[in-house]
Amino acid sequence: MKIAVIGLGLIGGSLAKDLKERGFATYITGNDVDEKNAQDALELGIVDTISTMELAVKGAELVLVTVPVSAITALLPQILNNIDSQTVVVDFGSTKEQICQAVKTHPKRQQYVAAHPIAGTEKSGPAAAVNNLFDNKTTIICEKELSAAKALQVAEVLFKTLNMNLMYMEAREHDVHLAYVSHLPHVISFAMVNTVLEAEKDSQFLFRLAGSGFASLTRLAKSSPDMWAPIFTQNASHVSEAIDLYIAELELFKRLVNKKDATMLHRMLERSNEVKNVTDASRS
Amino acid sequence: MKIAVIGLGLIGGSLAKDLKERGFATYITGNDVDEKNAQDALELGIVDTISTMELAVKGAELVLVTVPVSAITALLPQILNNIDSQTVVVDFGSTKEQICQAVKTHPKRQQYVAAHPIAGTEKSGPAAAVNNLFDNKTTIICEKELSAAKALQVAEVLFKTLNMNLMYMEAREHDVHLAYVSHLPHVISFAMVNTVLEAEKDSQFLFRLAGSGFASLTRLAKSSPDMWAPIFTQNASHVSEAIDLYIAELELFKRLVNKKDATMLHRMLERSNEVKNVTDASRS
Repeated sequence: MKIAVIGLGLIGGSLAKDLKERGFATYITGNDVDEKNAQDALELGIVDTISTMELAVKGAELVLVTVPVSAITALLPQILNNIDSQTVVVDFGSTKEQICQAVKTHPKRQQYVAAHPIAGTEKSGPAAAVNNLFDNKTTIICEKELSAAKALQVAEVLFKTLNMNLMYMEAREHDVHLAYVSHLPHVISFAMVNTVLEAEKDSQFLFRLAGSGFASLTRLAKSSPDMWAPIFTQNASHVSEAIDLYIAELELFKRLVNKKDATMLHRMLERSNEVKNVTDASRS
Repeated sequence: MKIAVIGLGLIGGSLAKDLKERGFATYITGNDVDEKNAQDALELGIVDTISTMELAVKGAELVLVTVPVSAITALLPQILNNIDSQTVVVDFGSTKEQICQAVKTHPKRQQYVAAHPIAGTEKSGPAAAVNNLFDNKTTIICEKELSAAKALQVAEVLFKTLNMNLMYMEAREHDVHLAYVSHLPHVISFAMVNTVLEAEKDSQFLFRLAGSGFASLTRLAKSSPDMWAPIFTQNASHVSEAIDLYIAELELFKRLVNKKDATMLHRMLERSNEVKNVTDASRS
């Protein structure tokens, strides 16, 4: 299958690697507004050629859109304008409501499948691309009733090739859930780093004191601002609500700390321990 | 050297393994209020024998206290009451101010070294004990002027054997720093899990949606309530202040999200990215 990958960062690059190696992609045309990213992807053998967005999508059977969500909203109508009548377009954005809204009334809406493959690392750029990034993870497909049966089928084969599990839901429902399980964790990590960098101005000191707990909490704070600032603004209302609930939980925690109420704190920590059932099971 | 390990959990167990294998400990007597822990440690070969606290410390040249900080505060005076005149006692507690306070006027205060080796995992119990847990990490020694030169020397050889780097500071200074780099990250993780478990009541759903970001933020929330509830209450004022600063950072974040101010959000995330300089360097 001839594929165009629009956006050659960690996601686009990792995707291209797997699709080529697994025989799903016969020829990959890449595009990136960042010329260095494009050149790197070509030199790394991630794509077969580099082209303008218009030419890349014109000849492709499948177009994969792996740019920040603000760029998806802006580009998606243009991509649909430029594709052939049989081409299928799938985006990989971490928000879905505004992206779906941007093409809701587009005459080629049926050729588009709104997707969110939940995978990534804190790294960015084509040099950070890795094989098997998507294996055994989940893709959420939204508004499937607005995609043609054939387009949906192509997308489903794509995600099976990536060894992903599929879930279907409404765009709004997606954005609410992701606010809690992904966007809030990122806010938490970004805000924690800023708090600690402010409190521990002597970074030499921080170096030596920070244990593995600090490292695991701050990993997400290394994530790309280009990717994440638009996610927070596109999913603003749900993210804001999640932050509010989280602050309320912290306030409760603080009250128990101030009262030195070890019994109630113990109970709260026991409740938190229940997360073992979630992440240990999902990793096995 | 004949060693007594009071508290046979993850820390006491890991410690005993390394000290035995590295030839520092010739004979280890263990003690744990939890009889199952004590029996497990004996069966796993972590200790040579099990004894009462009084008998364990009586015959030992070095006593290592690896119980929750509330138990350290309670036990330490009793341990000092029971030791011989040449025995050295070192604690491994994550707080230092209240622990130091508990033995400040004890006639054998000089035989005690107040330490905090910054190492651990979210697991607990002797079965979770691992080798090399302490290698290349940092130990903070507090109030060193209150320990006899000989006691300090024994402690320093102990931590060199564990391949640890040493820092010295006042107990209060220790507790302030640790509030930010360790206790706050734990509060953050515990509170996040409780928020998300509340919002996502269908845990089957959470299973499938939670990506690696969620997993890395929630690892600390699996930590032992027995260990952490007392840390939060012993370091209450500094932890409370750290939570306040953190909430202020979250509120700022939320305001920018509500205003959809992508430019300022981008700037905040760039600032967070500076943590790469801290954790990447400290890991290498």
